[in-house]
Amino acid sequence: MKSFWTDTVRRLTPYVPGEQRRGADIVKLNTNENPYPPSPKVIEAIQAVGSDALQRYPDPESAKLRQALADYHDLDISQVFVGNGSDEILALAFLAYFTNGKSLQFPDISYSFYPVYCDLYGIKPATIPLEPDYSLNLDRFEANAGGIIFPNPNAPTGCDVPGQAIEDLLTRHTDQVLLVDEAYADFGATSVVPLIKQFPNLLVSHTFSKGRSLAGMRLGVAFGDAHLIDGLQRVKNSFNSYPVDVLAQAAGVASINDESYYRQTLGTIMQTRAACVANLQARGFQVLPSAANFVFARAPEGDAKGLFDRLNNAGILVRYWPVERLDERLRITIGTPAQMQVLMNCLDA
Amino acid sequence: MKSFWTDTVRRLTPYVPGEQRRGADIVKLNTNENPYPPSPKVIEAIQAVGSDALQRYPDPESAKLRQALADYHDLDISQVFVGNGSDEILALAFLAYFTNGKSLQFPDISYSFYPVYCDLYGIKPATIPLEPDYSLNLDRFEANAGGIIFPNPNAPTGCDVPGQAIEDLLTRHTDQVLLVDEAYADFGATSVVPLIKQFPNLLVSHTFSKGRSLAGMRLGVAFGDAHLIDGLQRVKNSFNSYPVDVLAQAAGVASINDESYYRQTLGTIMQTRAACVANLQARGFQVLPSAANFVFARAPEGDAKGLFDRLNNAGILVRYWPVERLDERLRITIGTPAQMQVLMNCLDA
Repeated sequence: MKSFWTDTVRRLTPYVPGEQRRGADIVKLNTNENPYPPSPKVIEAIQAVGSDALQRYPDPESAKLRQALADYHDLDISQVFVGNGSDEILALAFLAYFTNGKSLQFPDISYSFYPVYCDLYGIKPATIPLEPDYSLNLDRFEANAGGIIFPNPNAPTGCDVPGQAIEDLLTRHTDQVLLVDEAYADFGATSVVPLIKQFPNLLVSHTFSKGRSLAGMRLGVAFGDAHLIDGLQRVKNSFNSYPVDVLAQAAGVASINDESYYRQTLGTIMQTRAACVANLQARGFQVLPSAANFVFARAPEGDAKGLFDRLNNAGILVRYWPVERLDERLRITIGTPAQMQVLMNCLDA
Repeated sequence: MKSFWTDTVRRLTPYVPGEQRRGADIVKLNTNENPYPPSPKVIEAIQAVGSDALQRYPDPESAKLRQALADYHDLDISQVFVGNGSDEILALAFLAYFTNGKSLQFPDISYSFYPVYCDLYGIKPATIPLEPDYSLNLDRFEANAGGIIFPNPNAPTGCDVPGQAIEDLLTRHTDQVLLVDEAYADFGATSVVPLIKQFPNLLVSHTFSKGRSLAGMRLGVAFGDAHLIDGLQRVKNSFNSYPVDVLAQAAGVASINDESYYRQTLGTIMQTRAACVANLQARGFQVLPSAANFVFARAPEGDAKGLFDRLNNAGILVRYWPVERLDERLRITIGTPAQMQVLMNCLDA
């Protein structure tokens, strides 16, 4: 049969998300979700949306939500962009800023969606090797390239780079867009959102999926100079006018306005992370320093695959990649203390 | 200041959606929304989603929703694709099927997002003129082009083409993808979804925004041969893994399962349309035959702009395009009988 796929479709190697297996006995520590529900005020805000609002198109500009985010970060609304999860924002940003014929620089061990976007748009990747200790040395990024993107903290390592090092990088490279993907910055890294006022080439992406417990809602944010954000708006308005639905807009505003709930759940997760690191180390794991809601730990004797299978059979889902430099390690999401105890019990058994 | 916009961003002329002005006194007949709320069962389904589901990622494959749609249309789940509104689906489909270096054929008067997608991806458009009576003659589409897309019924005309004419077109042109955009097909046009079993080059898009009263939720569907849908999945999974949130998936299933509510609201809108056409004709309008939830009517003496302004000042929003062949006409969404009466009263004043 004749295939109607274009070369674009043919050359793709799509992203593969973590398994979404569910069940009462499943301990799901594989997709870096928040173990706590969103703020009760978020639920109230969703339930308060009337059915008449469902029948109407949402505000295509998401003005209330963007204003709430602008106020929260002491920015102007023109410096804020929202989308259908931070993945959509990354996809639009790659098209808007990195389809310039030059190479896009990102760490060789990083979020595995970046090379997928490169395939999608025909962008040439230039990977920057992590150091032997899995840290990211920003001096390795070169001038005159087509752009730079890295997560801070990085995934799946959890390691962060200091804000000052990013500021130095921006001072060195004023000729290309730097996209700092702060999906996990809530859990301890220094956000560079304040630097967008100084550097017109800095774009910072956030998500409501991790620290704000709204993975089910699909809500992402980008911050940048008004000119950068305007470019992103142009691409968005040439792709999908209404990517953020009425319920997500209402949920986002309610989440931003409940700072105390957010701080409390973040604090609990960071405490659980510290205990988890100690408990894993006591069991012979080597754990990278994590500023995220997960740890990347070398299994005893490096037998990550065997351990992954045993945990999986016991209904404990973690993430494993059969790839050089990663294949002796597991990425374990920080769950509730009770979930981490189940994990430790299984490791002891 | 240096601009970081790529040529892609620069060449765009983004889509401009209809005004979203709101207010107690506003009669909003400008964006073809449904004047009735979604089924009460949809509201129940949204409220029944627990907060624990909000903290977890949604099913990236939207399997329950796709299965419900497959059952409804007597298809296999492999023939069904869902996305963040039908605009997102069109955007992905253009990338998947029309970036082939050849020209994409669509009517010169049609959904104004099609040329925007062409700009976004660098696709060359080949516009097919409508007939003097605004009908679409499918014989005008040529062989050996890069694809064909048209809405059925067309927008902003509301005119439909018979299913048999589309089947004949498919029989003639087996070498290019035909995308039939059935956003408005609920209101009287013949759907060609059953033809996807015969024609591997037919893709049909639907939306929950019009007939199903869920514009606020962002939910669209595509139907096609499993190979076509697989191509779309590959692009989607290279762009955004989770475009449809948990609440939209639940709302979609509940809507599909409440056939009687859906049929009832559609029936009411079609009755209101018939009355509206008669009332406009009685006031000197020439109204094109409409199979959609709007009418495209030539104003008395062709003074559409003057009438648009007067209606707008009275808080009645309709759509007007200052473009050749459209500029003597208004597109008026079919609202409730009470809303249409406000319109008629204003026309009489």
